[in-house]
Amino acid sequence: MRVLLVGATGLLGTEIRRCLEPEHEVIGASRKGSDVSVDLSNKASIVAMYDAVGKVGAVVCVGGAAKFAPMDALADDDYAFSLANKLMGQVNLVRCASGHVEEGGSVTLTSGTLSQQPMIGSAAVSIVNAGVEGFVRAAALELQGKMRVNVVSPGWVAETLASMGKDAAQGIAAVDVAKVYKRAIDETMTGQTLLAAKT
Amino acid sequence: MRVLLVGATGLLGTEIRRCLEPEHEVIGASRKGSDVSVDLSNKASIVAMYDAVGKVGAVVCVGGAAKFAPMDALADDDYAFSLANKLMGQVNLVRCASGHVEEGGSVTLTSGTLSQQPMIGSAAVSIVNAGVEGFVRAAALELQGKMRVNVVSPGWVAETLASMGKDAAQGIAAVDVAKVYKRAIDETMTGQTLLAAKT
Ligand SMILES: NC(=O)c1ccc[n+]([C@@H]2O[C@H](COP(=O)([O-])OP(=O)(O)OC[C@H]3O[C@@H](n4cnc5c(N)ncnc54)[C@H](OP(=O)(O)O)[C@@H]3O)[C@@H](O)[C@H]2O)c1
Ligand SMILES: NC(=O)c1ccc[n+]([C@@H]2O[C@H](COP(=O)([O-])OP(=O)(O)OC[C@H]3O[C@@H](n4cnc5c(N)ncnc54)[C@H](OP(=O)(O)O)[C@@H]3O)[C@@H](O)[C@H]2O)c1
Repeated sequence: MRVLLVGATGLLGTEIRRCLEPEHEVIGASRKGSDVSVDLSNKASIVAMYDAVGKVGAVVCVGGAAKFAPMDALADDDYAFSLANKLMGQVNLVRCASGHVEEGGSVTLTSGTLSQQPMIGSAAVSIVNAGVEGFVRAAALELQGKMRVNVVSPGWVAETLASMGKDAAQGIAAVDVAKVYKRAIDETMTGQTLLAAKT
Repeated sequence: MRVLLVGATGLLGTEIRRCLEPEHEVIGASRKGSDVSVDLSNKASIVAMYDAVGKVGAVVCVGGAAKFAPMDALADDDYAFSLANKLMGQVNLVRCASGHVEEGGSVTLTSGTLSQQPMIGSAAVSIVNAGVEGFVRAAALELQGKMRVNVVSPGWVAETLASMGKDAAQGIAAVDVAKVYKRAIDETMTGQTLLAAKT
């Protein structure tokens, strides 16, 4: 199967590519340094990416940003940036997928634990992550029979905790998060939020 | 207690006013026909409303709109309208509340069942409702000790079902939804999504 992987150069993207490549042809996308370039915050760029890539069996998105900062420090622009980027970027990836994803194919988006377990600084991220999960539940209903739509919600990733100087043992290894994206491609669920957290 | 009620002229707003008035002084707000005028989609108008009203013990919001339409018919502008109105309108109501809500007071927002139980046509509404719930979880953490923040998620309201020509018996009466907002004011919870659905 051909799999379009948005955010391919990132921590999770790198592990997902490694996990999928034995079975699938992975086409990486991101703003720079990938097979195809895309800026999720720009809908025209998403359309151009799909046109450049041709039909795929699955789309996975681990790209897109939202602003992490205490509410006192979050300006109007930070909310606008977050909504336009990780939220509407992923929504538009689904909206523009029709005709580019094979019938019965899948789109798998990314939210994150801050949707349900917030922390100080996560107000904008929590809106975005919860919004993506709400969208996926609704879009899956409308797209039933055409494509499956799911979202993976990673817990804190071990490598990320380590790079923040925190205890990596509290997190889930990126290689294990990647397996949850693979399940979303290979299995038959739709409309689901798949938790990828340390057990 | 003085309670600022945004969306006071609507179906739920009217019942909430009736439910609160025996105990509290209710100041109604909406775009037209209320004690004070506000357009939630305009942050400056929210600031002006708070300045006009003076200190309150609680804010309740049952105002704000999001666009209901099948995904094929939802344009970029419809998503933008929905995010700017019912989502960021309510977020900004909390962001601007500081200094206007008495210490230990509360803000209670509104989402709706489409957050968790989508239907065809609810993609934008589901994003907005889930996003408001995600925001409330995060904001409550940051505002701990200053003010409580909760969100009520009404199920389909009986009067709304009746006006759509559907079976009102499947819905919750507006008068019963109002009681859940009253609990959010009177009790001590914060960060909670309070379901107000037919039991
Ligand atoms: N790591 C964690 O602990 C963790 C936990 C929960 C959730 N998550 C979520 O998982 C996702 C991936 O996390 P990660 O740690 O792998 O992030 P990362 O290492 O920062 O990688 C992000 C990837 O997305 C691409 N990207 C960023 N902005 C983009 C845009 N506007 N358009 C297109 N591509 C863009 C980046 O490449 P370019 O910069 O070249 O575009 C990169 O390939 C994020 O949504 C994150 O919030 C991560
Ligand atoms: N009724 C239901 O079955 C149901 C179910 C689940 C959730 N909900 C949610 O509950 C809330 C209230 O529902 P409802 O049935 O009472 O609605 P409604 O009867 O249409 O009343 C809406 C109220 O909000 C005000 N409003 C609308 N846009 C506004 C804006 N931009 N700025 C300020 N005020 C604004 C309206 O007055 P003006 O037009 O004068 O501004 C009116 O007072 C909504 O968020 C709705 O999504 C309702």
